[in-house]
Amino acid sequence: MSGHVLALCGGVGGAKLALGLSLILPPERLTVVINTGDDFTHLGLRICPDIDTVTYTLGGLSNTELGWGRSGESWEFMENLRTLGGPDWFNLGDKDLATHVERTRRLMAGEPLSAITADFAAKHGIGPALVPMTDDEVATIIETDDGDLAFQHYFVRDRCQPEVRGIRFEGAEDAMPSPGLIAALKGPLDAIVICPSNPFLSVDPLLALPGIREALAGHEAPVIAVSPIVGGKAIKGPTAKLMGELGLDVTAASIVHHYRGLLDGFVLDSEDSDLAGRLSVSTYVTNTVMKTIEDRTGLARAVLDFAIRLKGRA
Amino acid sequence: MSGHVLALCGGVGGAKLALGLSLILPPERLTVVINTGDDFTHLGLRICPDIDTVTYTLGGLSNTELGWGRSGESWEFMENLRTLGGPDWFNLGDKDLATHVERTRRLMAGEPLSAITADFAAKHGIGPALVPMTDDEVATIIETDDGDLAFQHYFVRDRCQPEVRGIRFEGAEDAMPSPGLIAALKGPLDAIVICPSNPFLSVDPLLALPGIREALAGHEAPVIAVSPIVGGKAIKGPTAKLMGELGLDVTAASIVHHYRGLLDGFVLDSEDSDLAGRLSVSTYVTNTVMKTIEDRTGLARAVLDFAIRLKGRA
Repeated sequence: MSGHVLALCGGVGGAKLALGLSLILPPERLTVVINTGDDFTHLGLRICPDIDTVTYTLGGLSNTELGWGRSGESWEFMENLRTLGGPDWFNLGDKDLATHVERTRRLMAGEPLSAITADFAAKHGIGPALVPMTDDEVATIIETDDGDLAFQHYFVRDRCQPEVRGIRFEGAEDAMPSPGLIAALKGPLDAIVICPSNPFLSVDPLLALPGIREALAGHEAPVIAVSPIVGGKAIKGPTAKLMGELGLDVTAASIVHHYRGLLDGFVLDSEDSDLAGRLSVSTYVTNTVMKTIEDRTGLARAVLDFAIRLKGRA
Repeated sequence: MSGHVLALCGGVGGAKLALGLSLILPPERLTVVINTGDDFTHLGLRICPDIDTVTYTLGGLSNTELGWGRSGESWEFMENLRTLGGPDWFNLGDKDLATHVERTRRLMAGEPLSAITADFAAKHGIGPALVPMTDDEVATIIETDDGDLAFQHYFVRDRCQPEVRGIRFEGAEDAMPSPGLIAALKGPLDAIVICPSNPFLSVDPLLALPGIREALAGHEAPVIAVSPIVGGKAIKGPTAKLMGELGLDVTAASIVHHYRGLLDGFVLDSEDSDLAGRLSVSTYVTNTVMKTIEDRTGLARAVLDFAIRLKGRA
C-alpha cells in the first residue's frame, strides 16, 4: 500500500489509534477526520474536546494520567474562577486555555475551524492532516428522562448519570462536510478506518453529515471499524452504560450491527475471538487494548494489514 | 469626621492611596470610583486594567514586583498562546485570566460592570465599595503622529513611544455615570480625593462623564488632589513624557492648573514645598511617595487631616 488512509475518530480511544497510524505512515498519507458534535461554547470560549484530544495526542502533549487535556498542566485559572464564583464544572487547564481562547478569537474573526485546526496542528509539529468533520456547528444532544442535555453537560457535568433515551445531532442535516473530509473521500484511499471511538456519540455525528454515510458505503477502499467493545465492556467512557440504556447487548456484534451497510471489515479483540466468522463482515482478531505505544502502532499495523487483505479480496 | 470619603482613581498610583484609605477608614465609609477609559477587548475578553489593579491592590493580591497583575502569577497560558501564534503583546497571567473570562461571561449575560466589579471585590474580601466610573463603554484614544491609538495599544504595545498630540474619551459624552458614583456624589461626603493617578489619562475620563465635573466643583465636601508629580518627575508611568508632549511644564503647578475650577486643596510632596502658598488653592505638604504600607496609610491620613482643615475653614 502506498496510498492515503482516512481515519474517522472521536476522542481518547480514537486518538490512540490515530497516533498509532501517524507513527507508521508518512504524514502525507494520513488524514484524521475528527468529530465536532461534542463542541460547545463555555465561558464564551469555543471548546472542541475531540479536536483537542487528537491534537494533543499526536503532538505528544496529552495528559495520559487524566486521560484528557495537556500534560504538565496547571490549574491557576480554574482555582481563581472558583474564587470568583464562576461555573467550574468543566475543567480548563492554563495551557489548554490558550487553545480555546485563540481558537475563539480566530473563529470570531471569521476563519473556518478547519484552517485553525490545521494551523494549530502545524504549530504543534503534527504532520498528518487533522480535519474537523465540518466547519459548521453540529451539537450532539442527549435525550434523557431529565430532558435534553448538551453533550458536555451530560458527559462532564452530569457524569453520564442521566439515563439515555435517544441521541440526536442538531445541525448535522444542514452542515457541510469540511473541505478536508470531502477531499479525502474524493481521492484514492487504501483504507477508511473507523477508530474505536464511541459509535453512538463520537462516530454517528460524522455519519449524520449529508452524503457521508453514502460516500463511505460506496467507497472502493475497504471501510474497517475497530471494536470499542472488548469482552462485553467498553475500554473507556460511557459506551457500555449507553448501549444498555439504548436496549443493545454490550457486545462487539452490536457494534457491527450498528455500522451495518458501511463496513467491509471489523477488528475484534482477541478476547472476543469466539465472534470471528460469526459476524456479517470479515473480521480480524488482534489485541485492541492500547496501553503502550507499541499497542497503538501494533493495532495500526494490524488494521492496515487487514485493509490489504480485504483489498486483495475485492 | 465620620462621613463618607469618595476617592477617584486610575491604576497603580491611585490604587496605592486607595489602599491607604481602605486601611484607615471603616469599609462602609469609603467608595473608590475607578477609571474605565483604559478598558478594552482583547482576545475576545473584556479587560479592565484599572479596576483590576485596584481590586488586586485592595485584595492583597497585587504583584508588587511587576507593578501590575497578580502576585505569584504563572504564565502557562501566555506561553502556549505564543506557541499557537496568538497576539501576545498584552500579558495575561493564568490567575488574572479568570477575572477577564468570568467578567466577559457575565457582561455577555447582560450584567452591568458595576455589579460584576462589586461581586468580584466581595469575593476577594474587599470591604470598601469599588465602583467603575460608568457601566457604559468609554475608550481613551491617544492621538499621535502615527494616528489614533487605543489606550492599551499606546501604553502597552507601543510602550508610550508615539508622541502624543491629543487625548479624547470616546463614548464619554453619552455614557451614564455608574449608579455607585451618582449615589456617592448625592450623599454627604467628608472628602473627595483625586488620587495621584495620571490626570490626563486616568482622571480626565472620569471628569468627561456628563455632570461629573459640575458635581465635583459644586460639592460641599472639599475636593483634594494628590500630586502625581514630585520634584518635576512622575512617580511612575508616562505622565512626565506626556506632559512634555502636551506642552506643559512637568510641575505640580501644571497639575493644579489642569484641575482648575475643581480643587479645594492640593497635596504637594515635601520635595515641592517651595510651591506651597504659591498655588491657586490651599496646599498641604507631606511625603507623597508611597513605597511602604506606612507611606500609604500616612498619606491617606494626611489627606483626611487636610480635608478636616479645609472643612473647618469653609
